Amino acid sequence: CTMVKVIDGKGIASGIRERLQGEIRALAAHYKGAKPGLAIIQVGDREDSSLYVRMKQRAAEEVGMHFVLEKLPKDVRQMQLLNLIQQYNDDPKIHGILVQLPLPAHINERVITEAVDARKDVDGFNSANVGKLAKRDETPSFVPCTPKGVLHLIRSTGVDIAGKSAVVLGRSNIVGMPAAHLLMRENATVTVCHSKTTNVKEITRTADILVVAIGQAEYVRGDWVKPGAIVIDVGMNTIKDESKKSGSAVVGDVKYDEVAAVAGAITPVPGGVGPMTIAMLIENTVESAKLALSARLPPIE
Amino acid sequence: CTMVKVIDGKGIASGIRERLQGEIRALAAHYKGAKPGLAIIQVGDREDSSLYVRMKQRAAEEVGMHFVLEKLPKDVRQMQLLNLIQQYNDDPKIHGILVQLPLPAHINERVITEAVDARKDVDGFNSANVGKLAKRDETPSFVPCTPKGVLHLIRSTGVDIAGKSAVVLGRSNIVGMPAAHLLMRENATVTVCHSKTTNVKEITRTADILVVAIGQAEYVRGDWVKPGAIVIDVGMNTIKDESKKSGSAVVGDVKYDEVAAVAGAITPVPGGVGPMTIAMLIENTVESAKLALSARLPPIE
Ligand SMILES: NC(=O)C1=CN([C@@H]2O[C@H](COP(=O)(O)OP(=O)(O)OC[C@H]3O[C@@H](n4cnc5c(N)ncnc54)[C@H](OP(=O)(O)O)[C@@H]3O)[C@@H](O)[C@H]2O)C=CC1
Ligand SMILES: NC(=O)C1=CN([C@@H]2O[C@H](COP(=O)(O)OP(=O)(O)OC[C@H]3O[C@@H](n4cnc5c(N)ncnc54)[C@H](OP(=O)(O)O)[C@@H]3O)[C@@H](O)[C@H]2O)C=CC1
Repeated sequence: CTMVKVIDGKGIASGIRERLQGEIRALAAHYKGAKPGLAIIQVGDREDSSLYVRMKQRAAEEVGMHFVLEKLPKDVRQMQLLNLIQQYNDDPKIHGILVQLPLPAHINERVITEAVDARKDVDGFNSANVGKLAKRDETPSFVPCTPKGVLHLIRSTGVDIAGKSAVVLGRSNIVGMPAAHLLMRENATVTVCHSKTTNVKEITRTADILVVAIGQAEYVRGDWVKPGAIVIDVGMNTIKDESKKSGSAVVGDVKYDEVAAVAGAITPVPGGVGPMTIAMLIENTVESAKLALSARLPPIE
Repeated sequence: CTMVKVIDGKGIASGIRERLQGEIRALAAHYKGAKPGLAIIQVGDREDSSLYVRMKQRAAEEVGMHFVLEKLPKDVRQMQLLNLIQQYNDDPKIHGILVQLPLPAHINERVITEAVDARKDVDGFNSANVGKLAKRDETPSFVPCTPKGVLHLIRSTGVDIAGKSAVVLGRSNIVGMPAAHLLMRENATVTVCHSKTTNVKEITRTADILVVAIGQAEYVRGDWVKPGAIVIDVGMNTIKDESKKSGSAVVGDVKYDEVAAVAGAITPVPGGVGPMTIAMLIENTVESAKLALSARLPPIE
């Protein structure tokens, strides 16, 4: 019995944010104080959304980015939201625009997602970016943050992904599907499972690399996992926990203790994928700013 | 031992073309003689490309479409090709634009593919259309013709695709990847294999539905296939055949006799996927024309 390697997403993410802080300082020195700029638009005041937005804001400010938060009322008209996006599309100080999802039902999420300029689409959700991720020999402007973080964590184990069998549970636009594409691009053999999959446990047992993003608390059990597999748990589910002062706890989509006893490497929840998502958002915005700044201003000699 | 069902792509395609011919007549009656228009641009004179273009032309003319073929010399400059595409983008008589691939090496296939207006991209290759195919709750303007035909043939067997295990061999932009997305959209559990897959034979043996698009003559053998599986052979490979007057024959990526002895249903080569590709091109162009005509002209009362 070998020890499972716990993948330290929190530590890796903090290393990345430190590197980015240095890059942002260097950019400012190079381009007369210019900073990467991130605009987040939040519609309504869902508690979970507010929490995520606060975490992103804190990270952006810590690394020294220009940060703008626009909070719009829940009943904002779609046209007003579109106008605001257009304003940031045109704003040279802003290099990344993120519309916090989900949006209220009266707003068409697709229309909003497509309205963000592909060059500022740091979430990587618009169709042209998704298409480029799916196509060989193309490179999207941005890869969605959570799956980008997932790939980073898989790589951190030192595994050679090419030729490995990878199984992705979940096929959302935000996590599952782009994670599958990233793994295919790394030459894994990828199977995508979802709620209509009939024999999911047999399939997960073939996986050298298992990514779980289904939003079902502690759903994946120990006997679903191949001994030695790398398991990335994207899930963040709030469950009742009387032992906590708050009365609740956050758990992943994987039953941690059981799976950790079988897997070769595993991400904890919290402290695994979550911090990486935010670090990748900062990274995407910094990359965007580099491109924009190098195109717009001549560097100081 | 049950009899294999040979999927009659040729017959199914011919039925579709007949239906489309009727729809084209109805459109002309409705919109003062307006016809769906298809423009094909061929660069150079590769023999295989010329053959495919001739087949598409014949089908388009048979169903009564407006058809334009532009043949450009092999050494045409990319800018000239782009100008021509722009001309057809702007031409209200043209509803579908197809640039025959592959293009000569000095021309950037990506740039050309993106230049075709998404609303006339009847090949479904541009990034926004590919992205919409990959995204849940989105609908691309056009689905690429060959995989669209593949799905049609799978459906023709009467199988309930949801929950079935589907394996796609090959991940090209033209066939493998969009076929995988279409099957996922039908709620199959999809695995994509490619040249870096290590244990392909074990994987194909789990498939209820097996789509093969690798360009390797008679590569998939009888013992790779689960008894009763549906096998769609996209391959078209020219091999030496002394018994033929021409000295050559066209075979699929599947060893037909062996696999037909195991499978529940199989497409022949030729006469399987090939004719469907062309029928789907006509269908995409007719759909495009319907949209354009209904938006542009008021119908005759
Ligand atoms: N750490 C982070 O930064 C982030 C964490 N998350 C977390 O990841 C999880 C997934 O999020 P997201 O992708 O947005 O979720 P979605 O609800 O959008 O998608 C869930 C996917 O899982 C599939 N699924 C649901 N139940 C099962 C099941 N029993 N077996 C197999 N597949 C199933 C669904 O299938 P179908 O398509 O058939 O409906 C769907 O494809 C959530 O817990 C979320 O909180 C999300 C984003 C960021
Ligand atoms: N009937 C019709 O209308 C059409 C037929 N075709 C035919 O379909 C076939 C495929 O075409 P296309 O998709 O354009 O081909 P490509 O050459 O673009 O792609 C081939 C794919 O197959 C994979 N592959 C190659 N060898 C193997 C192998 N030994 N095992 C597993 N995977 C392998 C490649 O993997 P990797 O990605 O790792 O390189 C690649 O993804 C060809 O025979 C072509 O003539 C194509 C279009 C239309």
